[in-house]
Amino acid sequence: MDPLFTDTGVFLALEGGEGSGKSTQAALLVEWLESLGHRVLLTREPGGTEVGKILRHIVLDNDTGELSPRTEVLLYAADKAEHVDMVVLPALADGAVVLTDRYVDSTLAYQGAGRNLDIAEVEHIARWATSSLRPHLTIVLDIDPAIGHARFEGADRIESEPLEFHQRVRAHFLELAAADPAHYLVVGGGGTPEEIHADIRTAVEPWLGQAHP
Amino acid sequence: MDPLFTDTGVFLALEGGEGSGKSTQAALLVEWLESLGHRVLLTREPGGTEVGKILRHIVLDNDTGELSPRTEVLLYAADKAEHVDMVVLPALADGAVVLTDRYVDSTLAYQGAGRNLDIAEVEHIARWATSSLRPHLTIVLDIDPAIGHARFEGADRIESEPLEFHQRVRAHFLELAAADPAHYLVVGGGGTPEEIHADIRTAVEPWLGQAHP
Repeated sequence: MDPLFTDTGVFLALEGGEGSGKSTQAALLVEWLESLGHRVLLTREPGGTEVGKILRHIVLDNDTGELSPRTEVLLYAADKAEHVDMVVLPALADGAVVLTDRYVDSTLAYQGAGRNLDIAEVEHIARWATSSLRPHLTIVLDIDPAIGHARFEGADRIESEPLEFHQRVRAHFLELAAADPAHYLVVGGGGTPEEIHADIRTAVEPWLGQAHP
Repeated sequence: MDPLFTDTGVFLALEGGEGSGKSTQAALLVEWLESLGHRVLLTREPGGTEVGKILRHIVLDNDTGELSPRTEVLLYAADKAEHVDMVVLPALADGAVVLTDRYVDSTLAYQGAGRNLDIAEVEHIARWATSSLRPHLTIVLDIDPAIGHARFEGADRIESEPLEFHQRVRAHFLELAAADPAHYLVVGGGGTPEEIHADIRTAVEPWLGQAHP
């Protein structure tokens, strides 16, 4: 399937490892977009729908115990299918700015690179689930996993994976960004939250013409 | 992926529409196999694992309301991945006879033919979920949907679909059986439960050599 970019609405994704400051940047970005008069939908994967909340609980709760790696991929994909069809596409059709906390790249990074599954197959399923809908801009909040990981160790099933897992995840986010610079922004490093937010504004602004304030 | 048939254990699937008598035939078959000294695992899809029970609830409960058709396919596939990896394959490796109430063919018939999705894509995902593991024998309990459907109308999300849906499902089961007669038995029509059971015994018997009583 060819990548699908909508020509109404603006679709933004925030990606990054644990402790990278996604919540802070999401809040700053929403505040700014609303101050410009845009309708903004802040949503997330997994868990952006009623069914997705149940699936989020299964894949993240420590009580779930061991899952087959294929099961995990398919649960994340089911969450995405429901999220894109029922939440994201209708809001974009309506001209909103949709900001999702995690999207397909998280699946590729965590389930593909992290679990050592066949990444082409994982991507095929995630693309089918999402009708190949791509974000106009994916913002990768890059952080050294040794720092982010230490902050959140043991918090849930994914976060409690060993450091090498999170290092493979980080490398994969950076590869995805390098392969398609027109649709990616990598931020992080030593910047303050305000500096990072300023970089995000600069990258988001050119897309706002196709939103309907 | 090439079809995978295990050479230890015997993998049997029961398929068929609502009201076709699957539960009755499953009970008779298990009783007979146990009388021959086989270890028998009777299991089902969806719902053959702890996670599967949650997924079964989502896909079958009327309270779920409308799901994206892709979501439904992926939830069934997640149930299958967990079931095959955690339950079916270990029991087959141990030499048991595994009888599953519904398997991949139900996905192809209900989600593919029933929902008018791209059936090749639905099959690709279901095969990936199950590592292409095939039953040695699939027993299709064939019933006219106008009869089976009348008995069960409105019982759950799938059963309450209109008659045309169930007619497409039936046609698809029969096509699958016709395409691979070595691994399918179609029974039903006017037979009594005992007559149908006798036909099933005859078809199952040749496979029992690779079970370990």
